[in-house]
Amino acid sequence: MTTNDTTTTPVLDQAELDGVHAWWRAANYLSVGQIYLLDNALLERGLEPEDVKPRLLGHWGTTPGLNLVYVHLNRLIRSRGVNAIFLAGPGHGGPAAVANAYLEGTYTERFPRITQDRAGMQALFRQFSFPGGIPSHVAPETPGSIHEGGELGYVLSHAYGAAMDNPDLVVAAVVGDGEFETGPLAASWHGNKFLDPVTDGAVLPILHLNGYKIANPTVPARIHRTELVKMLEGFGHEVLTVEGDDPADVHQQMAAAMDLAHDRITETRRAAREDGDVTRRPGPMILLVTPKGWTGPKVVDGLPVEGTWRAHQVPLSGTRDNAEHRAQLEEWMRSYRAEELFDDGVLRPELQALAPVGPARMSDNPHANGGLLTKPLVLPDFRSRAVEVTEPGASIHEPTRVLGEYLVDVVRDNPTNFRIFGPDETASNRLNPVYEVTDKVFAGEILDTDEHLAPSGRVVEILSEHTCQGFLEGYTLTGRHGLFSCYEAFIHLVDSMFNQHAKWLKTTREIPWRPRVPSLNYLLSSHVWRQDHNGFSHQDPGFIDHVVNKSAEVVRVYLPPDANTLLSTMQHCLESQHYVNVVVAGKQPSFDWLTGAEADLHCARGAGIWDWASNDEGEPDVVIGCAGDVPTLEALAATKILRERLPDLRVRFVNVVDLMRLQDEGEHPHGMSHRDYDSLFGTDVPVIFAYHGYPWLIHRLTYRRTNNNHLHVRGYKEEGTTTTPFDMVMMNDMDRYHLVVDVIDRVPGLGVRAAALRQEMVDTRRRARQWTRDHGDDLPEVRDWEWTSAGDTPERGNSPSVTAAASTSADF
Amino acid sequence: MTTNDTTTTPVLDQAELDGVHAWWRAANYLSVGQIYLLDNALLERGLEPEDVKPRLLGHWGTTPGLNLVYVHLNRLIRSRGVNAIFLAGPGHGGPAAVANAYLEGTYTERFPRITQDRAGMQALFRQFSFPGGIPSHVAPETPGSIHEGGELGYVLSHAYGAAMDNPDLVVAAVVGDGEFETGPLAASWHGNKFLDPVTDGAVLPILHLNGYKIANPTVPARIHRTELVKMLEGFGHEVLTVEGDDPADVHQQMAAAMDLAHDRITETRRAAREDGDVTRRPGPMILLVTPKGWTGPKVVDGLPVEGTWRAHQVPLSGTRDNAEHRAQLEEWMRSYRAEELFDDGVLRPELQALAPVGPARMSDNPHANGGLLTKPLVLPDFRSRAVEVTEPGASIHEPTRVLGEYLVDVVRDNPTNFRIFGPDETASNRLNPVYEVTDKVFAGEILDTDEHLAPSGRVVEILSEHTCQGFLEGYTLTGRHGLFSCYEAFIHLVDSMFNQHAKWLKTTREIPWRPRVPSLNYLLSSHVWRQDHNGFSHQDPGFIDHVVNKSAEVVRVYLPPDANTLLSTMQHCLESQHYVNVVVAGKQPSFDWLTGAEADLHCARGAGIWDWASNDEGEPDVVIGCAGDVPTLEALAATKILRERLPDLRVRFVNVVDLMRLQDEGEHPHGMSHRDYDSLFGTDVPVIFAYHGYPWLIHRLTYRRTNNNHLHVRGYKEEGTTTTPFDMVMMNDMDRYHLVVDVIDRVPGLGVRAAALRQEMVDTRRRARQWTRDHGDDLPEVRDWEWTSAGDTPERGNSPSVTAAASTSADF
Repeated sequence: MTTNDTTTTPVLDQAELDGVHAWWRAANYLSVGQIYLLDNALLERGLEPEDVKPRLLGHWGTTPGLNLVYVHLNRLIRSRGVNAIFLAGPGHGGPAAVANAYLEGTYTERFPRITQDRAGMQALFRQFSFPGGIPSHVAPETPGSIHEGGELGYVLSHAYGAAMDNPDLVVAAVVGDGEFETGPLAASWHGNKFLDPVTDGAVLPILHLNGYKIANPTVPARIHRTELVKMLEGFGHEVLTVEGDDPADVHQQMAAAMDLAHDRITETRRAAREDGDVTRRPGPMILLVTPKGWTGPKVVDGLPVEGTWRAHQVPLSGTRDNAEHRAQLEEWMRSYRAEELFDDGVLRPELQALAPVGPARMSDNPHANGGLLTKPLVLPDFRSRAVEVTEPGASIHEPTRVLGEYLVDVVRDNPTNFRIFGPDETASNRLNPVYEVTDKVFAGEILDTDEHLAPSGRVVEILSEHTCQGFLEGYTLTGRHGLFSCYEAFIHLVDSMFNQHAKWLKTTREIPWRPRVPSLNYLLSSHVWRQDHNGFSHQDPGFIDHVVNKSAEVVRVYLPPDANTLLSTMQHCLESQHYVNVVVAGKQPSFDWLTGAEADLHCARGAGIWDWASNDEGEPDVVIGCAGDVPTLEALAATKILRERLPDLRVRFVNVVDLMRLQDEGEHPHGMSHRDYDSLFGTDVPVIFAYHGYPWLIHRLTYRRTNNNHLHVRGYKEEGTTTTPFDMVMMNDMDRYHLVVDVIDRVPGLGVRAAALRQEMVDTRRRARQWTRDHGDDLPEVRDWEWTSAGDTPERGNSPSVTAAASTSADF
Repeated sequence: MTTNDTTTTPVLDQAELDGVHAWWRAANYLSVGQIYLLDNALLERGLEPEDVKPRLLGHWGTTPGLNLVYVHLNRLIRSRGVNAIFLAGPGHGGPAAVANAYLEGTYTERFPRITQDRAGMQALFRQFSFPGGIPSHVAPETPGSIHEGGELGYVLSHAYGAAMDNPDLVVAAVVGDGEFETGPLAASWHGNKFLDPVTDGAVLPILHLNGYKIANPTVPARIHRTELVKMLEGFGHEVLTVEGDDPADVHQQMAAAMDLAHDRITETRRAAREDGDVTRRPGPMILLVTPKGWTGPKVVDGLPVEGTWRAHQVPLSGTRDNAEHRAQLEEWMRSYRAEELFDDGVLRPELQALAPVGPARMSDNPHANGGLLTKPLVLPDFRSRAVEVTEPGASIHEPTRVLGEYLVDVVRDNPTNFRIFGPDETASNRLNPVYEVTDKVFAGEILDTDEHLAPSGRVVEILSEHTCQGFLEGYTLTGRHGLFSCYEAFIHLVDSMFNQHAKWLKTTREIPWRPRVPSLNYLLSSHVWRQDHNGFSHQDPGFIDHVVNKSAEVVRVYLPPDANTLLSTMQHCLESQHYVNVVVAGKQPSFDWLTGAEADLHCARGAGIWDWASNDEGEPDVVIGCAGDVPTLEALAATKILRERLPDLRVRFVNVVDLMRLQDEGEHPHGMSHRDYDSLFGTDVPVIFAYHGYPWLIHRLTYRRTNNNHLHVRGYKEEGTTTTPFDMVMMNDMDRYHLVVDVIDRVPGLGVRAAALRQEMVDTRRRARQWTRDHGDDLPEVRDWEWTSAGDTPERGNSPSVTAAASTSADF
């Protein structure tokens, strides 16, 4: 190990060194066995073709490095009583995590079929990357894992999320040098500016420089070492370098580095917790430089393999048909001297004794199986924070600000297991009421002029959606709750991370020893229809489309139309487990439609007829449907025009909060039966539907419905710029006037009065567009619009004087 | 400026200083005017409420910094004849780019209505963030821009892409300190390891530390300066710091920094081009530290604004209604002393003389309007590289490898305007034949054991999809051609970047002075059905769903089923302009179905009946449709079973290459008329469709079709793991046996023979799954399957002995 505090005395005595090395050999042996062998697990005879799997699928290159880190972490856990979990950034080295969990006994505890004996080892080998078996990566099926080894880049953000509010935890995170090149990983080095040394645990990054990715050297391995170390120091780390290819030497260096790293962590904690000194200091990290595919074949078919990219996957690919390859494989496996490590497949007792005990084993640590630690949030009834609604449209609130007030209670009542994450948008999205009871955590310099910034806090803001998402995933996978507040358009940045998380949730639903974890909740605000300061680049409602491609068992989408429905929705989401909940809500001042009690009922139903807006008495001529706050406003405004101007037209008004209600019950657990759907939307009546997002999604969700051919959807069709709110809906033909035209065009036999109204609507639209161009603002009759129900439902009239003119003053 | 080469002699004499400062004041004045004023542009009278826009939308905070960089780049351009373009990472400071383009005269050249006089200035102010006007960001509408100021994080990757193969260009790229926190930006610092100093231009990063984002300080501004500088040096830069809040002092520092940076660039070029010394050396960058909202209001309503996050957008928000705010605005604007800069709205001649001339102006540089420089690729007819196909299914190739051979010609014949980008997957995706004629460019250390790695090369590989995408965007927006080869699942990483690029293309279609640029081409391989080494995490075909949400004018999706159709498709894509082309193709050995000539015709049609697979003679009982290579194989295998076992059943086989053909012609330019669609798919006949991706996309594309209710789609439904290829299709019910069952279940009146076949199919599936679990491989009759047409079309029979057994040896 090279560091400022160089030590040359060996840390390990010979017995310790022998033990560490023996475990490492055992783990390497089991790793190679998993990749290659169908039979003859203990090599009790020469390797025959049929001993080898017909399809060799896996990744050897990173595996010996992961095994090395694992055994040294175990040594640290045992020698110092450390509470640690292990995250493998290069998690395609799945055999490593499985091998260590097996050696520790946890694997057999989870999968009793995989016994700790010869038959079990055979089964362990066979099942890997084998039909009906286990995936090739570190995966949900792997005990001790919260980090899928699929898409690269998230190991550090997961690690920081796991460390938050776990003051005694050490999260060891191996960063592969390929992964190092990815954007999300590069940003997540700054996670160390968002930990509180008093209340949070520590992250120990281990950058493993094995030099190569699939087919290329890695950037960090091929820049000057001084550049790399400067960069890492610039990220705020003290770099402890462990480098070599002689195992005994590397073991000594690694043991010393682990001890020193732990000393540093301990001292930082002590200073913060005992002396109150929370000054950020360089955190330790280990730079581990060892050959790719270390201990594997050095040369295959005349080409160097160990220490090159050729070791990435399966170094010997022809072991079934090529006797020379098979002989090399046998020689390789025998080099680990398994006969010294296992007795008839049972790990020797002196090696078993090297494993930590019970939940101290990283493969059994409950933090890596967060459902075990999940406690429900203490949540007030949302109705305690509901806004008063005397009549529909009689008052105005900013829905997300009202939610912010509810979150005050949530933050206050759940001081150690709830956090809000956001890319510098918490205030912009108007959740700032939470700053009454908490701050934004920041370990950088804080100035007197800063507001709500402190070394402690429940709000975590970094301008990296990837990092926010990774933090929250790490936080929920370790059993805690959170909310990610983001601009709607830019949540697409984490499309791929969402994919991986949704896959994790889907898979773990079917793993009995993994209890459910809290849901991952998105609040998407600053949405497509109100990007006043920005424009076209900030307009994209397609995350919903992306989300609904994933397993119906784990995804939920909500579009609350006002403040109280947002509260009800969010309470439900925060109570839920093992879903991804997407909530899209407005931050601009907008009308309140439903009381707390009505919101509760409406959200429970997910979709329903708003009687006070309807006059169909069970026999509609047209159904006006809507989902989303702005669509609801335009749909109501259209309904008002229709009811005033064409009083004989029977209009049914249907609002959808829970988008998945539109699917049929066979497709999604929230899906409506055809009977229920037909009772809402009819079977042969025109439906004009105003939708928040891309209109075709509604068709995709409803294509099996009886009334499908009568459904006409308006939504965002990729038209926009920096303009007024009403100009935006006009650009996309979702404005009230266009909806009236749509109704008139689709309901047969409406006569001349309707024809005249149609022309008037067309003219009004033209006038509205011109007015906006002339005045830079919306038509006064739109800006000052208010809901009045038509004459036949007087008991739900309008209030006289409230207007919806949007303020721009606090508008980010 | 502080640097290792500190200089204290002022660089600018008084006249130069006065000139630079005057330009800066003019640009600042025009910036503020754009944000605020409807009228009274020259402040010829006191500011009245109606002079101010009713909605104040824009971002002041970053603007003075952008203006400062711009004027100093202009000085460099004039004094040293530099060929430079300007990329504003914090491009929400749109007023800055517009102001400078206006001062340079370019704005009036592009928009003659915006004259260089009082009326023009008035119009310039009014149109900004105003309905019918221009967006608030640096946008496609902004002359000199190739970088939309929307989503943050891409300025450096765009800059590096623009610099490639432009040996004399300097790309100045301002990085905001908020943007600095994003993942994509963090990764893109390593772009400097992928430039060739001989044949590529230079990127000059300017990190602007104004300290704040929307509502928070930035991380780089609040870590120790030594940490930041180490980090930047670790990224491979020499850091030239310019810091202060006294304009005269900052101007001097900035001029010195610009000169020194240019000296360094010049010396690196000279050493490489004259001495052949291509050793990577630290590239210059400027660290600019100035207050956010510099020169704006210092205090508003008692709170500090300049130098805080409160300056981010509109520092004085109440200027219409609040007389005090309005007075502050007036005072602020008058502080620039516009009367010294403009005569009746015309920039004074001595200031006009400070602008570079003609295309040396950054706002007029043709590199920032790449369509001006676009040259078509020299492309061989793909048929010269077509594989020989004697009969459908008579031979086997790896389609992407065949494409790689075609790309050999493309690379060779287009040595300076075509590149291949990939996240370490070019070889994995089997495009490695291109290494016959080129290398992977790399400026890091190169070892003797490396292959195809060199300081020069047409292949650019960094393990960051974000960086690859950014490079390619920068490359195409400056008029050159490229291909991004990526694993299908992980292309979702750039969903959001794709959004922004598609929006750019859509917008620029309507800007007459922006000629079209080359298309952005994706080759997605290692797709969902063949993720043998990886599994569930690597299975996601949803990028297509994401893409088709964007404007039909700019997106194209192709699913070539074999090698020759892939060649035909890719030639078409490489010839095209101003699209995003998504091509999904397999890399595994698979059957050839069409000859070069047939592929040409089929791809031109986009979808068509394969007569040799059909026996319907114009009157089908069932249509079997397919799109994608694996679905085509399964659909053909099902067709073969049906034709052999139910010879009376009339089967029509339809393959779709161009997915957008399924939409109707009103929705997409490639859409088929209803008449054409009906002639392919019938109006009341069952259609069983095997699709590469999520099945509901086909429903969404076809919901308006007559035969919609008879369409039954199979595809990926999010079931998968590490398993065999045929197990994957079985897990998702898209296998041949299931397709046969689907046909039998949907075609009425097939009788007992069909019922028996159905049961046999069910049994065979069960057997196949069990076989796979037992043997770890596919059923031999599946592995060794071959196409034979049924008896009635003997002229297109099968070849006798070729099998489709997939090799795993070269399988990454």
